[in-house]
Amino acid sequence: MTRYRNGEFWNFETQTPAADDDNAGVVLGIDGGTTSTVCVCLPAAMPRAGPLPDPLPILSRAVAGCSNHNSVGETEARKTLEEVMVEALSKACSSHAAVQAVCLAVSGVNHPTDQQGILDWLRDIFPSHVKLYVENDSVAALASGTMGKLHGCVLIAGTGTIAYGFTEDGREARAAGAGPVLGDWGSGYGIAAQALTAVIRAHDGRGPPTKLTENILNILGLSSPDELIGWTYADRSWARIAALVPVVVSSAEDGDEVANKILHYSVQELADSVMAVVRRLRLCGEDGKDPFPLVMVGGVLEANKSWDIGKEVIDCISKVCPGAHPIRPKVEPAVGAALLAWNHLIKECKGDHGN
Amino acid sequence: MTRYRNGEFWNFETQTPAADDDNAGVVLGIDGGTTSTVCVCLPAAMPRAGPLPDPLPILSRAVAGCSNHNSVGETEARKTLEEVMVEALSKACSSHAAVQAVCLAVSGVNHPTDQQGILDWLRDIFPSHVKLYVENDSVAALASGTMGKLHGCVLIAGTGTIAYGFTEDGREARAAGAGPVLGDWGSGYGIAAQALTAVIRAHDGRGPPTKLTENILNILGLSSPDELIGWTYADRSWARIAALVPVVVSSAEDGDEVANKILHYSVQELADSVMAVVRRLRLCGEDGKDPFPLVMVGGVLEANKSWDIGKEVIDCISKVCPGAHPIRPKVEPAVGAALLAWNHLIKECKGDHGN
Repeated sequence: MTRYRNGEFWNFETQTPAADDDNAGVVLGIDGGTTSTVCVCLPAAMPRAGPLPDPLPILSRAVAGCSNHNSVGETEARKTLEEVMVEALSKACSSHAAVQAVCLAVSGVNHPTDQQGILDWLRDIFPSHVKLYVENDSVAALASGTMGKLHGCVLIAGTGTIAYGFTEDGREARAAGAGPVLGDWGSGYGIAAQALTAVIRAHDGRGPPTKLTENILNILGLSSPDELIGWTYADRSWARIAALVPVVVSSAEDGDEVANKILHYSVQELADSVMAVVRRLRLCGEDGKDPFPLVMVGGVLEANKSWDIGKEVIDCISKVCPGAHPIRPKVEPAVGAALLAWNHLIKECKGDHGN
Repeated sequence: MTRYRNGEFWNFETQTPAADDDNAGVVLGIDGGTTSTVCVCLPAAMPRAGPLPDPLPILSRAVAGCSNHNSVGETEARKTLEEVMVEALSKACSSHAAVQAVCLAVSGVNHPTDQQGILDWLRDIFPSHVKLYVENDSVAALASGTMGKLHGCVLIAGTGTIAYGFTEDGREARAAGAGPVLGDWGSGYGIAAQALTAVIRAHDGRGPPTKLTENILNILGLSSPDELIGWTYADRSWARIAALVPVVVSSAEDGDEVANKILHYSVQELADSVMAVVRRLRLCGEDGKDPFPLVMVGGVLEANKSWDIGKEVIDCISKVCPGAHPIRPKVEPAVGAALLAWNHLIKECKGDHGN
């Protein structure tokens, strides 16, 4: 890693003034996903009391490719993360030396050993006074809805799905997020795989006929359900399967019973994931009525025409937890990560001064 | 392909006498699977009337690696198939020129275009009088139970599952066989994936506790269900997941309700596949009582201790179709393929003589 640390990537620093006062300090938030990686730079010196500035004084934003170590390998993932940080600092006319805190929220962090490995590597890049945090990418998504506060539950449903929650005193819990093999049926992949399965079943006589057959074959340019087998296994990318969700939604809107059943099942699965987290953390309190933020993120939960999966999930949860307060984030997860880094920094500074 | 046809692979032929009479003629049966490829050589001159010799006069058997073109690519698959035929002929002290018919039953043949591609390539190797047949590997499995007769239904349940059937007048139908993404829940992969999902759900509070957790973690040497996510995606081979079926069966035998539910669901799925084929082909006749062979193949259907998936599937089918006659083949699928080649040859010869 030293190849980059004192090598070409950090060379621009010699051309910018070193950060020598508090005002020039910055925090970095990184959202490292499977499709792309975004790094956002915020000033460390935002008001510590009262509401955050609106809009946030975002200094810069940089984008790179995939940084999920499960997808591209550790070396490539780290190189991408390092490059995106360098670019964000450069665009902010800031420098490595000005960094006071970094929050790296990255998919594929499922276990403390994953977390520690990445922390060790970050520590190798930044000096010891820099605060470093490594989180699952869903934590940044939660923070993007709560503006940096780790409280409540986030439900992400895009290609994959996960529910992740925090109590105000720092306990955390998750549900789902285990991928297609391990039954994430509420995800975009899960919904589309069920639809493809329904087409195969209708074709070979194991299931009822469905409009999904015509609608899916049309969109894929195939002439027979037999050809779906070859199509499915020609490319094992989950996102390619998940891209069929809009066809399932439009088929359900057209009144197709099979498509409606799939969507209702997925709504129940997504609500179950949230409720598992809420129950374990007692987010809705003893009487079940405590308020808590419920952050909703991802393509599957965005408003579709008349069949709105996100709304159905919220309705389902609100029946049991009337205090659930749905939030659709106005900032991106990388900003959530930067706000997390900033919040951690403020808390630690307060701690240093005896609070 | 000419590299092999007249190249080193066929060179041994110069050392063996050419087949110049009917008695020296042979047929080849090949079972081309994902794990291995088996080629069997039978004499073409077996008695054309009455029962087949018992035991069959198998001249030779050769084994090679994977020949599924979806797994290893077309060039590699063809090379493997060619090598295994050469080896079988060599072991039988026979030759390329003695071959009268070839039946190549290979997994991954799901569509007439797959079939035609392989036929074209076989035709490039053998002269025009040689009868060539390319079938899905499940057809050889059926023939291994019916000793070469294409009638009845075969149910295969190993890592994957498929049901395939033929009427006596040559109509055919299949169900399932579409792979894990497309919902083959009765397969070994399907059973094991459901078990892994149940462990994750119990762990994150979405499902009931189950003995599967302890039993699966023990056998994999993992300490927490969280680690299952990394284990599952470290290697996307379906067979590796399917290898967990015995743990699911033993957990069910120990009385675990979750494991029992998974096995009962899988039995229903497997029976549904057979019944879909039986209904489409009307194999049990108008009154539902006609007899037909039901060939049962694959690790999932072999007798387990007290929980016998194969027996449960047969019970399920027999309730609707009392004429279903279960057969567990005594010969391997490659022999089934060779018998198919031989049967085709006999029929065509009869045709040539005015029958």
